[in-house]
Amino acid sequence: MRIDILTVLPEMLESPLGCSILKRAQDKGLAEIVVHNLRDYTTDRHRKVDDYPFGGEAGMVMKVQPVDACISELKSQRRYDEVIFTSPDGQTLTQPLANRLSMMENIIILCGHYKGVDYRIREHLVTMEISIGDYVLTGGELPAAVIADAVVRLIPGAIGDEQSALSDSFQDNLLAPPVYTRPADYNGWTVPEILLSGHEARISEWRHEQALERTRRLRPDLLD
Amino acid sequence: MRIDILTVLPEMLESPLGCSILKRAQDKGLAEIVVHNLRDYTTDRHRKVDDYPFGGEAGMVMKVQPVDACISELKSQRRYDEVIFTSPDGQTLTQPLANRLSMMENIIILCGHYKGVDYRIREHLVTMEISIGDYVLTGGELPAAVIADAVVRLIPGAIGDEQSALSDSFQDNLLAPPVYTRPADYNGWTVPEILLSGHEARISEWRHEQALERTRRLRPDLLD
Repeated sequence: MRIDILTVLPEMLESPLGCSILKRAQDKGLAEIVVHNLRDYTTDRHRKVDDYPFGGEAGMVMKVQPVDACISELKSQRRYDEVIFTSPDGQTLTQPLANRLSMMENIIILCGHYKGVDYRIREHLVTMEISIGDYVLTGGELPAAVIADAVVRLIPGAIGDEQSALSDSFQDNLLAPPVYTRPADYNGWTVPEILLSGHEARISEWRHEQALERTRRLRPDLLD
Repeated sequence: MRIDILTVLPEMLESPLGCSILKRAQDKGLAEIVVHNLRDYTTDRHRKVDDYPFGGEAGMVMKVQPVDACISELKSQRRYDEVIFTSPDGQTLTQPLANRLSMMENIIILCGHYKGVDYRIREHLVTMEISIGDYVLTGGELPAAVIADAVVRLIPGAIGDEQSALSDSFQDNLLAPPVYTRPADYNGWTVPEILLSGHEARISEWRHEQALERTRRLRPDLLD
C-alpha cells in the first residue's frame, strides 16, 4: 500500500512516520509513505501556499494551485483509490472505515492548515473527507498520521502478533477486557485470581464477560 | 498550563510537540510540555517497561511499577488536575472537553502501548480516560499529541488570530462555512460571487446559511 501525504508542514510528520509500526511496515516493504511539501509545487517566486480569504474573514486559506499541481503529478504516475482530505466535517474515522482503507492500493491524504483549504479543492480534487473526531486541531498533519497508523497496522504482517490485533477493541464491537502482568501483587494491588488459575476455558469465558460488562457500562452504543 | 506526557516511545512525540502551535505556545511560555521516558523509571537492570500478560493472551502489557514511580515523582512536585490515560474505551474527546481541559493547570497524559497497560494502573492511578475516536492505534502517543494540540491552541494567545479560533467548526455547534482565496477563477473553477461583492452584512448572512446548510446535510446530529 502507498500513502502520499500532502502538507505545508512536512517536519511535523517526521517522528510519527519514522517510529514504531509505521517505520517497521515501511522497512518490511508493506507500506510506502511519501510526504510532499506543498511549497515545492508553488509557481510564484515567494512560494506562497496560502492567501487571505475572499470576503474578509480572519485567518489564511490554502491555495488551489500547489495542491492541484501535486495531485496532478501523482495521478500521472499511478491510479489512486481515494484523495482524502482531513477535516472536522468529514465522515468520522471508525474501525470499519480503517479496515476498508487498509485494503486500498494507493491513497492521497491532504492535510489542511491555517483557516482551511480553498473550497474548490474539496469540490474538484478531493474524493473523501475524513474527520478523526469532533474537535478542532491546528492542522491536518496529526489526523493524517492517525489515519496512517490506524490503517497500516491492519496490513497483514505489519504488527508482529496477528492474534493481538484480533483481540483489540472494536474488532468485535466490544471493548477489550482488562489485562494484567507481573507482579501478581503490587503493593497490595492484586490481579484477579482467575487469571492465575491456568483454566484456559474459564479464563476465556471471564474475558468475554469482562469485555461485555465494560462495553455495557462504558459504551452501550457499540452493542446497538 | 503544564502537560506531562508519559511514554515508552518519547521519540515519536518529538516532531509533533516541536512544531507549529505547540512549539509556539511553549516558546511564549503559555504551555510547558514535558515528555517522560518510562524506561527511566524502571528499577530492574533490564529496564523492562512491559511483560507477558497473566492468563496467556497474545501481546505485551505495560508494567505498573515504572508508571507508578513516574506519577508519584510528578505528584510530589505539584498538584495535578487529572491523570489522563488515552484509551479506546475512554470518554470521547470533543470540543467541550478540550475547552474544559484547556482551563486546567497541570495534567498528566499516560500513553498506552503494546497490548495495553496493567489494569491496576487504570484502577488506582488514572483519574480520566479519553479516547480520540472509535479506532485502534499502535499506541497512545498520537492521541496524546492530538489532545495536547486541541487543548493548547485554546489557551488565550496561543494562536495568532483569536477571531479565527472563534469561527472554527464546533465552537457554535455548526460546521465552518466554505472559504476561498485568490484567484477568483482557477481554470474555470470560480468563487461564489457574493464573496467578491464587498457587502459585509450579506456575506455574513451567506456564511451563516452555508454553515447551517452544511451542518444539516453532513452532521445533523450536531443540531439536536
